[in-house]
Amino acid sequence: MERYYHVDGELRPADEATVNVRDRGFLYGDAAFETLRTYGRSVFEWSMHLERLRSTARTLGMGAAVPTDEDLRTRVRETLSANDLTDAYVRLSVTRGVQPGKLTPDPDVDPTVVVIVDGLPRGGTEGPPVWDDRAVVRTVETRRVPDEAVPATTKTHNYLNGILARLELRRSGADPSGTDPTADEALLRDGEGYLAEGTTSNVFFVADGVLRTPSTDGSLLPGVTRSVVLDLARDSAIPVETGRYTVRDLQSADEAFLTNTTWEIRPIATVDGVEFSEGTTSRRLRDRFDELVEERHY
Amino acid sequence: MERYYHVDGELRPADEATVNVRDRGFLYGDAAFETLRTYGRSVFEWSMHLERLRSTARTLGMGAAVPTDEDLRTRVRETLSANDLTDAYVRLSVTRGVQPGKLTPDPDVDPTVVVIVDGLPRGGTEGPPVWDDRAVVRTVETRRVPDEAVPATTKTHNYLNGILARLELRRSGADPSGTDPTADEALLRDGEGYLAEGTTSNVFFVADGVLRTPSTDGSLLPGVTRSVVLDLARDSAIPVETGRYTVRDLQSADEAFLTNTTWEIRPIATVDGVEFSEGTTSRRLRDRFDELVEERHY
Repeated sequence: MERYYHVDGELRPADEATVNVRDRGFLYGDAAFETLRTYGRSVFEWSMHLERLRSTARTLGMGAAVPTDEDLRTRVRETLSANDLTDAYVRLSVTRGVQPGKLTPDPDVDPTVVVIVDGLPRGGTEGPPVWDDRAVVRTVETRRVPDEAVPATTKTHNYLNGILARLELRRSGADPSGTDPTADEALLRDGEGYLAEGTTSNVFFVADGVLRTPSTDGSLLPGVTRSVVLDLARDSAIPVETGRYTVRDLQSADEAFLTNTTWEIRPIATVDGVEFSEGTTSRRLRDRFDELVEERHY
Repeated sequence: MERYYHVDGELRPADEATVNVRDRGFLYGDAAFETLRTYGRSVFEWSMHLERLRSTARTLGMGAAVPTDEDLRTRVRETLSANDLTDAYVRLSVTRGVQPGKLTPDPDVDPTVVVIVDGLPRGGTEGPPVWDDRAVVRTVETRRVPDEAVPATTKTHNYLNGILARLELRRSGADPSGTDPTADEALLRDGEGYLAEGTTSNVFFVADGVLRTPSTDGSLLPGVTRSVVLDLARDSAIPVETGRYTVRDLQSADEAFLTNTTWEIRPIATVDGVEFSEGTTSRRLRDRFDELVEERHY
Protein backbone atom coordinates (compact mmCIF):
# COMPACT_ATOMS: atom_id res chain seq x y z
CA MET A 1 0.00 0.00 0.00
CA GLU A 2 1.29 3.40 -0.95
CA ARG A 3 2.18 5.67 1.94
CA TYR A 4 1.08 9.28 2.36
CA TYR A 5 3.18 11.84 4.20
CA HIS A 6 2.19 15.26 5.50
CA VAL A 7 4.32 18.12 4.15
CA ASP A 8 3.74 21.80 4.77
CA GLY A 9 0.06 21.26 5.58
CA GLU A 10 -0.81 18.80 2.82
CA LEU A 11 -1.04 15.05 2.53
CA ARG A 12 0.98 13.79 -0.40
CA PRO A 13 1.81 10.36 -1.81
CA ALA A 14 5.25 9.35 -0.52
CA ASP A 15 6.91 9.76 -3.93
CA GLU A 16 5.66 13.35 -4.18
CA ALA A 17 6.38 14.28 -0.57
CA THR A 18 9.23 16.72 -1.03
CA VAL A 19 10.93 19.81 0.36
CA ASN A 20 12.64 22.50 -1.65
CA VAL A 21 16.41 22.12 -2.04
CA ARG A 22 16.75 25.56 -0.45
CA ASP A 23 14.89 24.44 2.69
CA ARG A 24 17.35 24.86 5.55
CA GLY A 25 16.36 21.43 6.83
CA PHE A 26 18.04 20.08 3.70
CA LEU A 27 20.91 22.58 3.30
CA TYR A 28 22.10 22.47 6.92
CA GLY A 29 20.02 19.92 8.83
CA ASP A 30 18.51 23.05 10.39
CA ALA A 31 15.44 21.36 11.87
CA ALA A 32 14.00 19.96 15.10
CA PHE A 33 12.31 16.58 15.13
CA GLU A 34 10.76 13.91 17.32
CA THR A 35 10.27 10.20 16.82
CA LEU A 36 6.82 9.30 18.15
CA ARG A 37 5.05 6.00 18.59
CA THR A 38 1.32 5.47 18.51
CA TYR A 39 -0.56 2.62 20.13
CA GLY A 40 -4.10 2.37 18.84
CA ARG A 41 -3.79 5.77 17.10
CA SER A 42 -2.84 7.69 20.24
CA VAL A 43 0.70 9.05 20.67
CA PHE A 44 2.72 7.73 23.63
CA GLU A 45 3.86 10.59 25.90
CA TRP A 46 2.79 13.28 23.44
CA SER A 47 3.30 16.12 25.94
CA MET A 48 6.86 15.13 26.73
CA HIS A 49 7.72 14.86 23.03
CA LEU A 50 6.06 18.18 22.25
CA GLU A 51 7.94 19.88 25.08
CA ARG A 52 11.26 18.51 23.80
CA LEU A 53 10.42 19.61 20.24
CA ARG A 54 9.68 23.11 21.53
CA SER A 55 12.85 23.10 23.61
CA THR A 56 14.96 22.11 20.59
CA ALA A 57 13.32 24.81 18.49
CA ARG A 58 13.97 27.44 21.17
CA THR A 59 17.65 26.45 21.32
CA LEU A 60 17.75 26.86 17.55
CA GLY A 61 16.26 30.35 17.93
CA MET A 62 12.96 29.44 16.29
CA GLY A 63 10.71 28.61 19.23
CA ALA A 64 7.84 30.66 17.81
CA ALA A 65 7.88 28.64 14.59
CA VAL A 66 6.53 25.45 16.16
CA PRO A 67 2.79 25.13 15.45
CA THR A 68 0.29 24.75 18.28
CA ASP A 69 -0.33 21.49 20.10
CA GLU A 70 -3.69 21.04 18.34
CA ASP A 71 -2.28 21.87 14.91
CA LEU A 72 0.50 19.29 15.26
CA ARG A 73 -1.89 16.66 16.64
CA THR A 74 -4.14 17.22 13.64
CA ARG A 75 -1.29 16.71 11.19
CA VAL A 76 -0.26 13.49 12.89
CA ARG A 77 -3.87 12.24 13.04
CA GLU A 78 -4.49 13.03 9.37
CA THR A 79 -1.32 11.22 8.35
CA LEU A 80 -2.24 8.12 10.37
CA SER A 81 -5.75 8.09 8.87
CA ALA A 82 -4.51 8.48 5.32
CA ASN A 83 -2.29 5.45 5.86
CA ASP A 84 -4.91 3.49 7.79
CA LEU A 85 -2.39 3.03 10.62
CA THR A 86 -3.12 2.52 14.30
CA ASP A 87 0.19 1.25 15.71
CA ALA A 88 2.81 3.38 14.08
CA TYR A 89 6.21 5.01 13.94
CA VAL A 90 5.84 8.78 13.41
CA ARG A 91 8.64 11.20 12.58
CA LEU A 92 7.59 14.81 13.13
CA SER A 93 9.98 17.50 11.85
CA VAL A 94 9.88 21.29 11.96
CA THR A 95 12.51 22.95 9.77
CA ARG A 96 13.50 26.61 9.55
CA GLY A 97 12.14 26.55 5.99
CA VAL A 98 13.45 28.53 3.02
CA GLN A 99 15.08 31.83 3.90
CA PRO A 100 16.96 34.52 2.01
CA GLY A 101 20.71 34.73 2.54
CA LYS A 102 23.03 31.94 3.50
CA LEU A 103 24.04 30.47 6.87
CA THR A 104 22.86 33.19 9.28
CA PRO A 105 19.23 32.42 10.17
CA ASP A 106 16.62 35.10 9.63
CA PRO A 107 14.40 35.70 12.71
CA ASP A 108 11.34 35.57 10.46
CA VAL A 109 10.66 31.83 10.09
CA ASP A 110 8.11 30.15 7.81
CA PRO A 111 8.70 26.58 8.99
CA THR A 112 8.24 23.41 6.99
CA VAL A 113 6.39 20.76 8.99
CA VAL A 114 6.82 17.16 7.87
CA VAL A 115 5.13 14.01 9.19
CA ILE A 116 6.43 10.63 8.04
CA VAL A 117 4.79 7.43 9.27
CA ASP A 118 5.30 3.71 9.09
CA GLY A 119 3.66 0.68 10.67
CA LEU A 120 4.98 -0.92 13.87
CA PRO A 121 3.96 -4.05 15.80
CA ARG A 122 1.11 -3.51 18.25
CA GLY A 123 3.08 -3.38 21.51
CA GLY A 124 1.49 -3.67 24.94
CA THR A 125 0.93 -7.01 26.66
CA GLU A 126 -0.64 -8.56 23.56
CA GLY A 127 1.79 -7.55 20.84
CA PRO A 128 5.32 -8.64 19.93
CA PRO A 129 8.19 -6.18 20.43
CA VAL A 130 9.44 -4.20 17.42
CA TRP A 131 12.91 -5.76 17.69
CA ASP A 132 13.60 -9.36 16.69
CA ASP A 133 16.32 -10.22 19.17
CA ARG A 134 18.14 -8.80 22.12
CA ALA A 135 20.60 -6.08 21.16
CA VAL A 136 24.20 -6.72 20.14
CA VAL A 137 26.06 -3.60 21.22
CA ARG A 138 29.53 -2.31 20.42
CA THR A 139 31.38 0.68 21.78
CA VAL A 140 32.83 2.78 18.97
CA GLU A 141 35.71 5.24 18.61
CA THR A 142 33.47 8.08 17.42
CA ARG A 143 32.79 10.27 20.46
CA ARG A 144 29.50 11.98 21.15
CA VAL A 145 29.30 15.64 20.05
CA PRO A 146 29.86 17.64 23.27
CA ASP A 147 27.21 19.87 24.78
CA GLU A 148 29.39 22.95 24.25
CA ALA A 149 29.35 22.36 20.46
CA VAL A 150 25.66 21.45 20.02
CA PRO A 151 23.46 21.30 23.14
CA ALA A 152 22.83 17.65 24.03
CA THR A 153 19.16 18.34 24.75
CA THR A 154 18.45 19.11 21.08
CA LYS A 155 17.07 16.53 18.67
CA THR A 156 17.84 17.78 15.19
CA HIS A 157 18.44 16.76 11.59
CA ASN A 158 22.21 16.86 12.31
CA TYR A 159 22.65 13.12 12.78
CA LEU A 160 26.05 12.41 11.23
CA ASN A 161 27.66 11.76 14.60
CA GLY A 162 25.35 8.76 15.04
CA ILE A 163 25.73 7.72 11.40
CA LEU A 164 29.52 7.69 11.72
CA ALA A 165 29.14 5.56 14.86
CA ARG A 166 26.85 3.12 13.02
CA LEU A 167 29.35 2.99 10.13
CA GLU A 168 31.94 1.72 12.60
CA LEU A 169 29.69 -1.28 13.20
CA ARG A 170 29.82 -1.98 9.50
CA ARG A 171 33.61 -1.97 9.57
CA SER A 172 33.77 -4.18 12.65
CA GLY A 173 31.18 -6.58 11.19
CA ALA A 174 31.91 -10.09 10.03
CA ASP A 175 31.67 -9.09 6.41
CA PRO A 176 34.06 -6.24 5.51
CA SER A 177 31.89 -5.35 2.51
CA GLY A 178 29.46 -4.02 5.03
CA THR A 179 26.49 -6.12 4.04
CA ASP A 180 26.42 -8.13 7.24
CA PRO A 181 27.01 -6.00 10.28
CA THR A 182 26.80 -8.05 13.42
CA ALA A 183 25.86 -5.31 15.87
CA ASP A 184 22.55 -3.48 16.21
CA GLU A 185 23.63 -0.45 18.14
CA ALA A 186 26.78 1.62 18.64
CA LEU A 187 27.53 2.97 22.07
CA LEU A 188 29.15 6.39 22.22
CA ARG A 189 31.37 7.72 24.96
CA ASP A 190 31.85 11.39 25.77
CA GLY A 191 35.14 13.24 25.29
CA GLU A 192 36.41 12.01 28.64
CA GLY A 193 35.64 8.40 27.89
CA TYR A 194 32.51 8.00 30.00
CA LEU A 195 29.46 6.17 28.71
CA ALA A 196 27.03 8.53 26.99
CA GLU A 197 24.33 6.81 24.95
CA GLY A 198 23.57 4.67 21.93
CA THR A 199 23.15 6.39 18.56
CA THR A 200 19.36 6.21 18.91
CA SER A 201 18.95 4.85 22.44
CA ASN A 202 19.72 5.33 26.11
CA VAL A 203 21.53 2.62 28.02
CA PHE A 204 20.60 1.15 31.43
CA PHE A 205 22.20 -1.56 33.53
CA VAL A 206 21.50 -3.30 36.82
CA ALA A 207 24.31 -3.95 39.29
CA ASP A 208 23.83 -5.06 42.90
CA GLY A 209 20.09 -4.63 42.48
CA VAL A 210 20.42 -0.95 41.53
CA LEU A 211 19.20 0.35 38.15
CA ARG A 212 21.82 2.70 36.72
CA THR A 213 21.92 4.99 33.70
CA PRO A 214 24.20 7.90 32.70
CA SER A 215 22.95 11.20 34.06
CA THR A 216 21.71 14.05 31.86
CA ASP A 217 24.68 16.31 32.46
CA GLY A 218 25.18 17.29 28.86
CA SER A 219 26.47 14.06 27.39
CA LEU A 220 23.18 12.60 26.20
CA LEU A 221 19.74 13.35 24.83
CA PRO A 222 17.27 12.86 27.69
CA GLY A 223 15.10 10.17 26.13
CA VAL A 224 11.35 10.07 26.68
CA THR A 225 11.40 6.30 27.25
CA ARG A 226 14.41 6.76 29.57
CA SER A 227 12.28 9.09 31.67
CA VAL A 228 9.30 6.70 31.67
CA VAL A 229 11.52 3.79 32.71
CA LEU A 230 13.01 5.77 35.59
CA ASP A 231 9.47 6.57 36.78
CA LEU A 232 8.40 2.93 36.48
CA ALA A 233 11.44 1.83 38.48
CA ARG A 234 10.66 4.31 41.27
CA ASP A 235 7.01 3.20 41.28
CA SER A 236 8.18 -0.41 41.54
CA ALA A 237 10.56 0.37 44.42
CA ILE A 238 13.59 -0.53 42.32
CA PRO A 239 16.59 1.51 43.55
CA VAL A 240 17.77 3.96 40.89
CA GLU A 241 21.07 5.78 40.47
CA THR A 242 22.22 8.13 37.71
CA GLY A 243 25.86 9.13 37.30
CA ARG A 244 28.98 8.83 35.21
CA TYR A 245 29.88 5.29 34.25
CA THR A 246 32.49 3.51 32.18
CA VAL A 247 32.07 0.73 29.63
CA ARG A 248 33.65 -1.54 32.25
CA ASP A 249 30.88 -0.63 34.74
CA LEU A 250 28.35 -1.64 32.12
CA GLN A 251 30.15 -4.86 31.23
CA SER A 252 30.39 -5.97 34.85
CA ALA A 253 26.66 -5.44 35.44
CA ASP A 254 24.15 -8.25 35.92
CA GLU A 255 21.60 -7.01 33.38
CA ALA A 256 21.54 -4.33 30.72
CA PHE A 257 19.06 -2.88 28.26
CA LEU A 258 18.51 -0.07 25.78
CA THR A 259 15.52 2.22 25.58
CA ASN A 260 14.01 4.34 22.84
CA THR A 261 10.57 5.19 21.57
CA THR A 262 10.33 2.41 19.01
CA TRP A 263 12.28 -0.32 20.81
CA GLU A 264 10.68 0.58 24.17
CA ILE A 265 12.87 -1.59 26.45
CA ARG A 266 15.27 -3.84 24.56
CA PRO A 267 17.48 -6.21 26.55
CA ILE A 268 21.17 -6.30 25.63
CA ALA A 269 22.66 -9.64 24.62
CA THR A 270 26.32 -8.54 24.46
CA VAL A 271 28.50 -5.45 24.83
CA ASP A 272 31.76 -5.83 22.90
CA GLY A 273 31.28 -9.57 23.20
CA VAL A 274 30.57 -9.65 26.94
CA GLU A 275 27.32 -11.59 27.42
CA PHE A 276 24.24 -10.71 29.47
CA SER A 277 21.15 -12.71 30.27
CA GLU A 278 17.83 -10.96 30.77
CA GLY A 279 17.42 -10.62 34.52
CA THR A 280 14.42 -10.17 36.76
CA THR A 281 14.67 -6.39 37.04
CA SER A 282 14.63 -5.86 33.28
CA ARG A 283 11.77 -8.33 32.92
CA ARG A 284 9.74 -6.56 35.61
CA LEU A 285 10.28 -3.19 33.93
CA ARG A 286 9.27 -4.58 30.54
CA ASP A 287 6.08 -6.03 32.01
CA ARG A 288 5.29 -2.74 33.74
CA PHE A 289 5.95 -0.86 30.50
CA ASP A 290 3.59 -3.15 28.56
CA GLU A 291 0.93 -2.71 31.23
CA LEU A 292 1.33 1.07 31.05
CA VAL A 293 0.75 0.95 27.30
CA GLU A 294 -2.37 -1.18 27.79
CA GLU A 295 -3.72 1.07 30.53
CA ARG A 296 -3.28 4.23 28.55
CA HIS A 297 -3.89 3.23 24.98
CA TYR A 298 -6.23 0.27 24.61
CA MET B 1 14.85 36.24 -13.37
CA GLU B 2 13.77 32.82 -12.21
CA ARG B 3 16.56 30.52 -11.15
CA TYR B 4 17.03 26.93 -12.26
CA TYR B 5 18.67 24.33 -10.09
CA HIS B 6 20.01 20.91 -11.02
CA VAL B 7 18.47 18.03 -9.02
CA ASP B 8 19.11 14.36 -9.61
CA GLY B 9 20.17 14.92 -13.22
CA GLU B 10 17.51 17.42 -14.24
CA LEU B 11 17.29 21.18 -14.45
CA ARG B 12 14.23 22.47 -12.63
CA PRO B 13 12.77 25.91 -11.86
CA ALA B 14 13.83 26.85 -8.32
CA ASP B 15 10.30 26.45 -6.92
CA GLU B 16 10.10 22.89 -8.22
CA ALA B 17 13.65 21.91 -7.25
CA THR B 18 12.96 19.43 -4.48
CA VAL B 19 14.21 16.32 -2.73
CA ASN B 20 12.06 13.64 -1.20
CA VAL B 21 11.41 13.98 2.54
CA ARG B 22 12.93 10.52 2.95
CA ASP B 23 16.20 11.61 1.33
CA ARG B 24 18.87 11.15 3.99
CA GLY B 25 20.26 14.57 3.11
CA PHE B 26 17.03 15.93 4.60
CA LEU B 27 16.41 13.41 7.40
CA TYR B 28 19.92 13.48 8.84
CA GLY B 29 22.00 16.04 6.94
CA ASP B 30 23.65 12.91 5.50
CA ALA B 31 25.36 14.61 2.56
CA ALA B 32 28.69 15.98 1.38
CA PHE B 33 28.88 19.37 -0.27
CA GLU B 34 31.19 22.04 -1.64
CA THR B 35 30.78 25.75 -2.12
CA LEU B 36 32.36 26.69 -5.45
CA ARG B 37 32.97 29.98 -7.13
CA THR B 38 33.15 30.56 -10.85
CA TYR B 39 34.94 33.39 -12.60
CA GLY B 40 33.87 33.71 -16.22
CA ARG B 41 32.09 30.31 -16.04
CA SER B 42 35.14 28.36 -14.90
CA VAL B 43 35.32 26.97 -11.38
CA PHE B 44 38.14 28.22 -9.15
CA GLU B 45 40.30 25.33 -7.87
CA TRP B 46 37.89 22.68 -9.14
CA SER B 47 40.32 19.81 -8.50
CA MET B 48 40.86 20.75 -4.87
CA HIS B 49 37.11 21.06 -4.26
CA LEU B 50 36.42 17.76 -6.01
CA GLU B 51 39.09 16.02 -3.96
CA ARG B 52 37.59 17.35 -0.74
CA LEU B 53 34.09 16.31 -1.82
CA ARG B 54 35.38 12.79 -2.51
CA SER B 55 37.23 12.75 0.80
CA THR B 56 34.08 13.77 2.70
CA ALA B 57 32.07 11.10 0.88
CA ARG B 58 34.69 8.43 1.70
CA THR B 59 34.58 9.38 5.38
CA LEU B 60 30.79 9.01 5.21
CA GLY B 61 31.25 5.54 3.72
CA MET B 62 29.84 6.50 0.31
CA GLY B 63 32.95 7.30 -1.72
CA ALA B 64 31.73 5.31 -4.70
CA ALA B 65 28.53 7.36 -4.86
CA VAL B 66 30.23 10.55 -6.07
CA PRO B 67 29.79 10.92 -9.85
CA THR B 68 32.79 11.29 -12.14
CA ASP B 69 34.69 14.54 -12.59
CA GLU B 70 33.20 15.04 -16.06
CA ASP B 71 29.65 14.23 -14.90
CA LEU B 72 29.81 16.78 -12.08
CA ARG B 73 31.40 19.42 -14.33
CA THR B 74 28.56 18.93 -16.81
CA ARG B 75 25.91 19.43 -14.13
CA VAL B 76 27.58 22.63 -12.94
CA ARG B 77 27.98 23.90 -16.51
CA GLU B 78 24.37 23.16 -17.39
CA THR B 79 23.13 24.95 -14.29
CA LEU B 80 25.25 28.02 -15.01
CA SER B 81 24.02 28.12 -18.62
CA ALA B 82 20.37 27.75 -17.63
CA ASN B 83 20.78 30.76 -15.36
CA ASP B 84 22.92 32.70 -17.80
CA LEU B 85 25.56 33.13 -15.10
CA THR B 86 29.28 33.60 -15.55
CA ASP B 87 30.48 34.83 -12.14
CA ALA B 88 28.64 32.68 -9.66
CA TYR B 89 28.24 31.02 -6.31
CA VAL B 90 27.71 27.26 -6.76
CA ARG B 91 26.65 24.82 -4.06
CA LEU B 92 27.23 21.21 -5.10
CA SER B 93 25.77 18.52 -2.84
CA VAL B 94 25.85 14.73 -2.99
CA THR B 95 23.45 13.06 -0.54
CA ARG B 96 23.12 9.40 0.41
CA GLY B 97 19.68 9.50 -1.20
CA VAL B 98 16.59 7.56 -0.13
CA GLN B 99 17.32 4.22 1.53
CA PRO B 100 15.29 1.53 3.23
CA GLY B 101 15.55 1.27 7.02
CA LYS B 102 16.35 4.02 9.43
CA LEU B 103 19.66 5.45 10.68
CA THR B 104 22.13 2.73 9.64
CA PRO B 105 23.28 3.53 6.10
CA ASP B 106 22.91 0.89 3.42
CA PRO B 107 26.13 0.28 1.43
CA ASP B 108 24.10 0.46 -1.79
CA VAL B 109 23.81 4.20 -2.46
CA ASP B 110 21.74 5.93 -5.13
CA PRO B 111 22.91 9.49 -4.44
CA THR B 112 20.97 12.68 -4.99
CA VAL B 113 23.13 15.32 -6.66
CA VAL B 114 22.03 18.93 -6.28
CA VAL B 115 23.50 22.08 -7.83
CA ILE B 116 22.29 25.46 -6.57
CA VAL B 117 23.65 28.66 -8.08
CA ASP B 118 23.48 32.38 -7.54
CA GLY B 119 25.21 35.40 -9.03
CA LEU B 120 28.32 36.96 -7.47
CA PRO B 121 30.35 40.07 -8.31
CA ARG B 122 33.00 39.51 -10.97
CA GLY B 123 36.14 39.33 -8.81
CA GLY B 124 39.66 39.63 -10.15
CA THR B 125 41.45 42.95 -10.55
CA GLU B 126 38.50 44.55 -12.34
CA GLY B 127 35.59 43.53 -10.11
CA PRO B 128 34.44 44.60 -6.66
CA PRO B 129 34.70 42.12 -3.77
CA VAL B 130 31.58 40.18 -2.75
CA TRP B 131 31.64 41.70 0.74
CA ASP B 132 30.61 45.29 1.39
CA ASP B 133 32.92 46.10 4.29
CA ARG B 134 35.74 44.65 6.32
CA ALA B 135 34.56 41.90 8.68
CA VAL B 136 33.29 42.51 12.20
CA VAL B 137 34.20 39.36 14.10
CA ARG B 138 33.14 38.05 17.49
CA THR B 139 34.32 35.03 19.40
CA VAL B 140 31.40 32.93 20.62
CA GLU B 141 30.81 30.46 23.43
CA THR B 142 29.75 27.65 21.09
CA ARG B 143 32.81 25.43 20.59
CA ARG B 144 33.72 23.73 17.35
CA VAL B 145 32.59 20.11 17.03
CA PRO B 146 35.74 18.07 17.80
CA ASP B 147 37.42 15.85 15.23
CA GLU B 148 36.70 12.75 17.33
CA ALA B 149 32.92 13.38 17.03
CA VAL B 150 32.76 14.34 13.34
CA PRO B 151 36.04 14.47 11.36
CA ALA B 152 37.01 18.11 10.82
CA THR B 153 37.98 17.44 7.23
CA THR B 154 34.36 16.72 6.24
CA LYS B 155 32.09 19.35 4.71
CA THR B 156 28.54 18.12 5.22
CA HIS B 157 24.92 19.18 5.58
CA ASN B 158 25.36 19.04 9.40
CA TYR B 159 25.84 22.75 9.93
CA LEU B 160 24.06 23.46 13.20
CA ASN B 161 27.32 24.05 15.06
CA GLY B 162 27.95 27.07 12.82
CA ILE B 163 24.30 28.16 12.94
CA LEU B 164 24.35 28.15 16.76
CA ALA B 165 27.53 30.24 16.61
CA ARG B 166 25.88 32.72 14.23
CA LEU B 167 22.82 32.86 16.51
CA GLU B 168 25.10 34.08 19.31
CA LEU B 169 25.90 37.09 17.12
CA ARG B 170 22.20 37.82 16.98
CA ARG B 171 22.02 37.79 20.76
CA SER B 172 25.08 39.98 21.14
CA GLY B 173 23.83 42.38 18.46
CA ALA B 174 22.71 45.91 19.10
CA ASP B 175 19.08 44.98 18.61
CA PRO B 176 17.97 42.12 20.90
CA SER B 177 15.14 41.28 18.51
CA GLY B 178 17.87 39.91 16.29
CA THR B 179 17.10 42.01 13.24
CA ASP B 180 20.29 44.04 13.41
CA PRO B 181 23.26 41.88 14.29
CA THR B 182 26.44 43.91 14.31
CA ALA B 183 28.90 41.14 13.54
CA ASP B 184 29.45 39.33 10.24
CA GLU B 185 31.26 36.26 11.43
CA ALA B 186 31.51 34.16 14.57
CA LEU B 187 34.88 32.77 15.55
CA LEU B 188 34.86 29.34 17.14
CA ARG B 189 37.43 27.96 19.55
CA ASP B 190 38.16 24.27 20.03
CA GLY B 191 37.41 22.39 23.25
CA GLU B 192 40.70 23.56 24.76
CA GLY B 193 40.03 27.19 24.00
CA TYR B 194 42.37 27.61 21.01
CA LEU B 195 41.32 29.48 17.90
CA ALA B 196 39.75 27.16 15.34
CA GLU B 197 37.92 28.93 12.53
CA GLY B 198 34.99 31.10 11.57
CA THR B 199 31.65 29.42 10.89
CA THR B 200 32.26 29.63 7.13
CA SER B 201 35.82 30.96 7.00
CA ASN B 202 39.41 30.43 8.02
CA VAL B 203 41.24 33.11 9.99
CA PHE B 204 44.71 34.54 9.33
CA PHE B 205 46.73 37.21 11.09
CA VAL B 206 50.08 38.92 10.64
CA ALA B 207 52.37 39.52 13.62
CA ASP B 208 56.01 40.58 13.42
CA GLY B 209 55.85 40.20 9.66
CA VAL B 210 54.84 36.52 9.87
CA LEU B 211 51.54 35.29 8.40
CA ARG B 212 49.89 32.93 10.90
CA THR B 213 46.86 30.67 10.76
CA PRO B 214 45.64 27.76 12.92
CA SER B 215 47.08 24.45 11.74
CA THR B 216 44.93 21.65 10.32
CA ASP B 217 45.30 19.34 13.30
CA GLY B 218 41.64 18.38 13.53
CA SER B 219 40.13 21.62 14.74
CA LEU B 220 39.19 23.13 11.39
CA LEU B 221 38.06 22.43 7.86
CA PRO B 222 41.09 22.91 5.58
CA GLY B 223 39.73 25.63 3.35
CA VAL B 224 40.56 25.78 -0.34
CA THR B 225 41.14 29.54 -0.19
CA ARG B 226 43.24 29.01 2.96
CA SER B 227 45.48 26.69 0.96
CA VAL B 228 45.70 29.11 -1.99
CA VAL B 229 46.62 31.99 0.34
CA LEU B 230 49.37 29.95 2.00
CA ASP B 231 50.80 29.18 -1.45
CA LEU B 232 50.63 32.83 -2.50
CA ALA B 233 52.41 33.86 0.68
CA ARG B 234 55.21 31.36 0.08
CA ASP B 235 55.51 32.50 -3.55
CA SER B 236 55.73 36.09 -2.33
CA ALA B 237 58.42 35.25 0.25
CA ILE B 238 56.10 36.16 3.12
CA PRO B 239 57.10 34.09 6.17
CA VAL B 240 54.34 31.65 7.14
CA GLU B 241 53.65 29.81 10.38
CA THR B 242 50.79 27.49 11.30
CA GLY B 243 50.12 26.46 14.89
CA ARG B 244 47.80 26.74 17.86
CA TYR B 245 46.83 30.28 18.72
CA THR B 246 44.60 32.06 21.20
CA VAL B 247 42.13 34.89 20.64
CA ARG B 248 44.64 37.11 22.42
CA ASP B 249 47.31 36.20 19.83
CA LEU B 250 44.87 37.27 17.13
CA GLN B 251 43.91 40.48 18.90
CA SER B 252 47.52 41.54 19.41
CA ALA B 253 48.35 41.04 15.72
CA ASP B 254 49.06 43.86 13.27
CA GLU B 255 46.68 42.68 10.55
CA ALA B 256 44.00 40.02 10.28
CA PHE B 257 41.71 38.63 7.60
CA LEU B 258 39.24 35.85 6.85
CA THR B 259 39.22 33.59 3.82
CA ASN B 260 36.59 31.52 2.11
CA THR B 261 35.54 30.72 -1.42
CA THR B 262 33.02 33.52 -1.82
CA TRP B 263 34.72 36.21 0.28
CA GLU B 264 38.18 35.29 -1.07
CA ILE B 265 40.34 37.43 1.30
CA ARG B 266 38.29 39.69 3.58
CA PRO B 267 40.16 42.01 5.95
CA ILE B 268 38.99 42.06 9.55
CA ALA B 269 37.90 45.42 11.02
CA THR B 270 37.46 44.27 14.64
CA VAL B 271 37.66 41.15 16.80
CA ASP B 272 35.49 41.53 19.93
CA GLY B 273 35.88 45.27 19.53
CA VAL B 274 39.66 45.32 19.07
CA GLU B 275 40.38 47.28 15.89
CA PHE B 276 42.63 46.43 12.95
CA SER B 277 43.68 48.42 9.93
CA GLU B 278 44.40 46.69 6.64
CA GLY B 279 48.16 46.29 6.50
CA THR B 280 50.59 45.86 3.66
CA THR B 281 50.81 42.06 3.88
CA SER B 282 47.05 41.59 3.57
CA ARG B 283 46.94 44.08 0.73
CA ARG B 284 49.76 42.30 -1.12
CA LEU B 285 48.00 38.95 -0.75
CA ARG B 286 44.71 40.39 -1.97
CA ASP B 287 46.41 41.85 -5.02
CA ARG B 288 48.16 38.56 -5.73
CA PHE B 289 44.86 36.71 -5.34
CA ASP B 290 43.11 39.03 -7.79
CA GLU B 291 45.98 38.59 -10.25
CA LEU B 292 45.71 34.81 -9.91
CA VAL B 293 42.00 34.98 -10.76
CA GLU B 294 42.75 37.14 -13.82
CA GLU B 295 45.56 34.85 -14.97
CA ARG B 296 43.50 31.72 -14.72
CA HIS B 297 39.98 32.75 -15.57
CA TYR B 298 39.78 35.73 -17.93
